[in-house]
Amino acid sequence: MYSYNQLFEFLLVIFQKMGCSKLDAEEISRVFLAAELRGLPSHGMIRLKDYVQLWQVKRINPEPTLKIVHQTLSTAVVDGDNAIGMVSASFAMKLAIEKAKTAGTGWVACRNSNHFGIAGYYSMMALDHDMIGICMTNANPQVAPTFSVSPMLGTNPIAVAIPAGKQPPFVADFSTTPIARGKLAVAEKKGEKVPLGFVQDAQGIPSDDPGILRKGGSMLTLGGDYTHGSHKGFCLASIVDIFSAVFSGANFGPFVPPSLAYLPVLETKVGEGTGHFFGAMRIDAWQEASQFKEKMDLWIETFRNAKPAKGNERVLIPGDLEREKEVQLSIEGISIIEPVVKDLQEIAALFEVSFPSNE
Amino acid sequence: MYSYNQLFEFLLVIFQKMGCSKLDAEEISRVFLAAELRGLPSHGMIRLKDYVQLWQVKRINPEPTLKIVHQTLSTAVVDGDNAIGMVSASFAMKLAIEKAKTAGTGWVACRNSNHFGIAGYYSMMALDHDMIGICMTNANPQVAPTFSVSPMLGTNPIAVAIPAGKQPPFVADFSTTPIARGKLAVAEKKGEKVPLGFVQDAQGIPSDDPGILRKGGSMLTLGGDYTHGSHKGFCLASIVDIFSAVFSGANFGPFVPPSLAYLPVLETKVGEGTGHFFGAMRIDAWQEASQFKEKMDLWIETFRNAKPAKGNERVLIPGDLEREKEVQLSIEGISIIEPVVKDLQEIAALFEVSFPSNE
Repeated sequence: MYSYNQLFEFLLVIFQKMGCSKLDAEEISRVFLAAELRGLPSHGMIRLKDYVQLWQVKRINPEPTLKIVHQTLSTAVVDGDNAIGMVSASFAMKLAIEKAKTAGTGWVACRNSNHFGIAGYYSMMALDHDMIGICMTNANPQVAPTFSVSPMLGTNPIAVAIPAGKQPPFVADFSTTPIARGKLAVAEKKGEKVPLGFVQDAQGIPSDDPGILRKGGSMLTLGGDYTHGSHKGFCLASIVDIFSAVFSGANFGPFVPPSLAYLPVLETKVGEGTGHFFGAMRIDAWQEASQFKEKMDLWIETFRNAKPAKGNERVLIPGDLEREKEVQLSIEGISIIEPVVKDLQEIAALFEVSFPSNE
Repeated sequence: MYSYNQLFEFLLVIFQKMGCSKLDAEEISRVFLAAELRGLPSHGMIRLKDYVQLWQVKRINPEPTLKIVHQTLSTAVVDGDNAIGMVSASFAMKLAIEKAKTAGTGWVACRNSNHFGIAGYYSMMALDHDMIGICMTNANPQVAPTFSVSPMLGTNPIAVAIPAGKQPPFVADFSTTPIARGKLAVAEKKGEKVPLGFVQDAQGIPSDDPGILRKGGSMLTLGGDYTHGSHKGFCLASIVDIFSAVFSGANFGPFVPPSLAYLPVLETKVGEGTGHFFGAMRIDAWQEASQFKEKMDLWIETFRNAKPAKGNERVLIPGDLEREKEVQLSIEGISIIEPVVKDLQEIAALFEVSFPSNE
């Protein structure tokens, strides 16, 4: 087990050694560890290696100059100057919150950015301001549109955070596919098959092979097959892609640049970098804040009291599991699997610092 | 086959006889027929009977006074005064568009409203203004949260319309369940089973019985089961419910009033009527309008050129099928099934008008 502070200090040093300012390095580190604490290690420490490799081949810019390139009272477009995703995303979300202070809502699209960790982090930034937060991003193409075999969309997540009063906030953060890419890798390592509805082969035939993506296969959108509404998942993934990339002038769909250094830079560009979309809405843009919170408490209590299905003990509100995990791991510490520890030790050696010992 | 004009004139007379102003009756009629033309007859003429019955028991108000009860630069809350849904929805969407003209975006939540037909209609109102349109509504509870057997959510649709240039617009309009309620009724009438993933029984066991809703069963959210991401469908349906009802002060979740006169008025109220949510965003709030349209054309062309899966001829862009149907039925006319014609003839008799003859 590692404590939050051990890992935070380590990340902070690494990103500063890469050339990031202290403030930027702090924000990046917070997002990495938010993923760990919230039980999403696929977006946590395991990713540091990818970031370091992208930096080594100069495909991310640790010293970006962020610019607002277009704006109205309630909207803006940010050029991330090829920043590490957390830096441009955090800047853009803060801008959305500022816009909302005067206009009631604020909406910011960001281009020329990179992988930014968990979308939920940015949506939750709004909560402290008594605002609803929204965040979306496009991502590396591996998901096929309904009726197609071309991997053209990312797992394109949507995050929405809504403040409550006595109840903890509603925090939804979900990809627009049945499963995250990471689950396929885990199944493959274990030598297991996956249920139908997750992936298809190069012909578009449903497959249970978690390694099918390397054989010309692709992931399916939420819904899984047309009968079960995969075209609705395709609508959602498309909306995320358009809001993130067409709005901002980033690369969309199949042109999103790979967030892994061992994948070649794409030949065709239709915009700048990866795209994100952020929203912030003041709760008192809808009604008196205290009234809003009371109503939201009542909503949460009503749904928490839904009758559980046979074999289930309780009904979960979006965000419950992640919040409980956060409390648990803040006390117990964060565990990191051995192969990732090895990677981190190598990174430490590269930057001539020490990786904390596991105690 | 009936011509658009025949049905429009008929609807116009009926709604005026119910007490609606000519302008309101026109808008209601347009929405009814947009559903027919776009191949969604479940939201078209078949629904007139329900509206007439709600009017007969004074559960909808044909002469509403719509009010803006709260607002900021980019937001507003509208009280629909128990209007027929189309009247309050159209008013609210127009207000969102007006707000967007000055603030870049406009967002309107509406309470004290009723069933409003197809969500896509209102999102598409934005297109003529070179704006992106968004529309959501909550609806009668028949969908259970993941891990629960309580029918607490509607099929809560999301509609997003995005203008393009040479290409037709992107128009997504989808419920947050694998299927619409109407498909269950059709399967039941035909004596057919439905695939697993659509409904569950009173214990929460997946069921293939399309009549299970009357036996304590419930519909499932998009994803179908937890393995395939039904919790993501639950997030979506919840977001629609909260944006539509918590924002506006309407009834949420299990408290949404039934849109059918033969179902009793609910005892518990947590707000006023049914709730909707509307959004409008100027495309030039993001970049120069012509540039936006070019990029959107490129997006659509890219995805239309995706490689079809085996057995499929083409990949569809959201809105393609409905637009093609609209062109076809505008020429061929609208067919109405016999039981619905009978209902319409009875309604005609009730209001002492004639229903057009089918030629």
